[in-house]
Amino acid sequence: MNHSKPRAPVDRRRFLNLVGLAGAGAGAVAAGVRPAAAGATPDPDIVNIPGWTQSLGAGVNNHPYGIPSPFEKDVVRREVTWLTASSESSVSFTPLYALDGIITPNGLCFVRHHGGEAEIDPARHRFMIHGMVDKPLVFTMEDIKRMPGRTNRAYFLECAANSGMEWRGAQLNGCQYTHGMIHNVVYTGVPLRAFLEAAGVKPKGKWVLAEGADASAMTRSIPIEKAMDDCLVAWAMNGEALRPEQGYPLRLVVPGWEGNMWIKWLRRVEIGDQPWGQREETSKYTDLLADGRSRRFTFFMDAKSVVTNPSPQAPLRAKGPNVVSGIAWSGRGTITRVDVSLDGGKNWTTARIEGPALPRSMTRFYLDFDWNGQELLLQSRAMDDSGYLQPTKAELRAVRGENSIYHNNGIQTWLVRSNGEAENVEVS
Amino acid sequence: MNHSKPRAPVDRRRFLNLVGLAGAGAGAVAAGVRPAAAGATPDPDIVNIPGWTQSLGAGVNNHPYGIPSPFEKDVVRREVTWLTASSESSVSFTPLYALDGIITPNGLCFVRHHGGEAEIDPARHRFMIHGMVDKPLVFTMEDIKRMPGRTNRAYFLECAANSGMEWRGAQLNGCQYTHGMIHNVVYTGVPLRAFLEAAGVKPKGKWVLAEGADASAMTRSIPIEKAMDDCLVAWAMNGEALRPEQGYPLRLVVPGWEGNMWIKWLRRVEIGDQPWGQREETSKYTDLLADGRSRRFTFFMDAKSVVTNPSPQAPLRAKGPNVVSGIAWSGRGTITRVDVSLDGGKNWTTARIEGPALPRSMTRFYLDFDWNGQELLLQSRAMDDSGYLQPTKAELRAVRGENSIYHNNGIQTWLVRSNGEAENVEVS
Repeated sequence: MNHSKPRAPVDRRRFLNLVGLAGAGAGAVAAGVRPAAAGATPDPDIVNIPGWTQSLGAGVNNHPYGIPSPFEKDVVRREVTWLTASSESSVSFTPLYALDGIITPNGLCFVRHHGGEAEIDPARHRFMIHGMVDKPLVFTMEDIKRMPGRTNRAYFLECAANSGMEWRGAQLNGCQYTHGMIHNVVYTGVPLRAFLEAAGVKPKGKWVLAEGADASAMTRSIPIEKAMDDCLVAWAMNGEALRPEQGYPLRLVVPGWEGNMWIKWLRRVEIGDQPWGQREETSKYTDLLADGRSRRFTFFMDAKSVVTNPSPQAPLRAKGPNVVSGIAWSGRGTITRVDVSLDGGKNWTTARIEGPALPRSMTRFYLDFDWNGQELLLQSRAMDDSGYLQPTKAELRAVRGENSIYHNNGIQTWLVRSNGEAENVEVS
Repeated sequence: MNHSKPRAPVDRRRFLNLVGLAGAGAGAVAAGVRPAAAGATPDPDIVNIPGWTQSLGAGVNNHPYGIPSPFEKDVVRREVTWLTASSESSVSFTPLYALDGIITPNGLCFVRHHGGEAEIDPARHRFMIHGMVDKPLVFTMEDIKRMPGRTNRAYFLECAANSGMEWRGAQLNGCQYTHGMIHNVVYTGVPLRAFLEAAGVKPKGKWVLAEGADASAMTRSIPIEKAMDDCLVAWAMNGEALRPEQGYPLRLVVPGWEGNMWIKWLRRVEIGDQPWGQREETSKYTDLLADGRSRRFTFFMDAKSVVTNPSPQAPLRAKGPNVVSGIAWSGRGTITRVDVSLDGGKNWTTARIEGPALPRSMTRFYLDFDWNGQELLLQSRAMDDSGYLQPTKAELRAVRGENSIYHNNGIQTWLVRSNGEAENVEVS
């Protein structure tokens, strides 16, 4: 037994100030137990044992499928109604400021539809492989679940347009809106390769087209190398069936690549010898440069990070010890390092990565720091195992201009004022 | 590009029988696309494009906090009402047969209450450290979230009574009931050690008592070595706030040890020089031996596994390729191997572990196999990195008798009949 074993060093004097035993901001003691020390401000709960201790609570099957505490009712996805013409082709953003760790709960994973949410009867759903194959095949959901090679992988899914409104400057006040088109779950599925091998791809097959069964019939072209590498045909997320808004009963998982390619309500994969040039890879999801030309097939989501706390929706509330928390991810591989700056990029401190750091998965970082009430210009920058370092927005704009909507992975800055409130800003 | 790169070998001939192109059990093709091959049974959906493709679905913020598909309405926790005197002190079981991967969705994590579900206002909740310390301390939830050393860890939580009704023979028909007092989530919290160090544990402090704020004031004694090692004071699970039935706003995480010690609604930790001898560690949660003596402080949950599919709630539905799926876990460390037997333990095949295999976390295994309709006696056995191999029930009973309720980690057997239905049995 070693009480002084160092792992999470704590400055005790600071904590006496943090907690209810040394004056300001303090006072109450644990409900229903005796006061911890003389001098603490009396709390009505010491006399009035709280209701939750006095009487029996709800039974064990209060909710056969559980729901969050009523005190968490504001932690929800939020739609920006002015962003698109209709709610059936819009976005509802993940509340990143209220989340922690690396798993996004299924109920809070951001939603992007192009023709609304298809509600599919899995017994009637079919998945077809056809085109340049030896033998076209059609699968029921039961067939798919009987396929050999099932696996489980944690992957981030980021919309190519995430942070897209920030190309021309700081626009939206909250990481839910600037960076909330991302989620990270563990998928269960079978490699797409297994289906392609079962059908027998002909030698001239170089591209696949994946198509959804929703009203938009979302279609994207994917190079055969990627299809044969790590794509999954997935039916479960975080242990349970896909949610309707995430493609129930079947979606394509395209690790590290832009979210639009992760076809929801997947109904067919066609093999061809060239890309199809669908709307979503020509008029959309191409990167318009300053000179009017467009970059096509910019599939990879490069290394990126954001500080989720503090941020505009989650201000600092007290001086003294505080935690900077954030997420980092890279479509090229594994996050190896995240640095945090408190002064707009002049000085950087390497943050702790806490929790599994898996390839193409969201990674959580923390920086414990002491806040004396000074203004902060808070930034983070991610590095992945390819050696790539997340660029500044200025560096990105120097190469691509400001016309693009997609693939903005520039460094985000939050101005934290001396009252703890935070704001989206840019530093030059 | 290498189309024959081996990872998930598929026998194509078998799949032609599996899918809709080679006769029985086949027929339909992907809705809304052309038939994949001549000879397929016409499907009305080819003519009648399904509704979900014909018209716009719901908008992106249909459910600000998402819910499962209506087609998954039977995937819920289930209570066994005859098990205890009241629902406020009972169990609601995880539907393991319907889940996959290693994450249990928060809404489906099993529930065990002793005084019902406390519904706590986090603004009024306090956490106290006191007893044999230099300085007792009281924390608000905000104080706790400002502590240095925050981390994220995936851990299984298993009730000591999981499989407890099986000591005297096969009783319950379904892994939801025989093994469903387990869940596995990623916790966010601060090491308990940080709080103990902040308070300053006196040299004679050898045990801690953790207490809940619910009506049962659940209390358990924990050795200081464990408290200083890997216990967490946690406020989030799978990225979001703890669910009310899992201890919102604060619970103790005691990795690898029996679930009863993971105090929910955690309000205080007291440091003492000996265990307290509370009800839950004397009359309950002790292991009654054949000779009438009881083993006390049997904290560890030893290596265990169960096949979740097929199982009584999830029969086999077709001959040919099938997947045996299951979970394994060990309170002593990391699962290194899982074997599966189709013949009641005579022959064993090592299964694939798929997905992260993390210490004291649920681990997923699969065995792809070909079913010709023969009867199966399906078993799994887990091994951990301490070298421990999961025992048979006969081996356990030879040592402990049949009086115990707790710590049954014996090998489970499912009889799978030639019609695919499965049943809980024991093999001698």
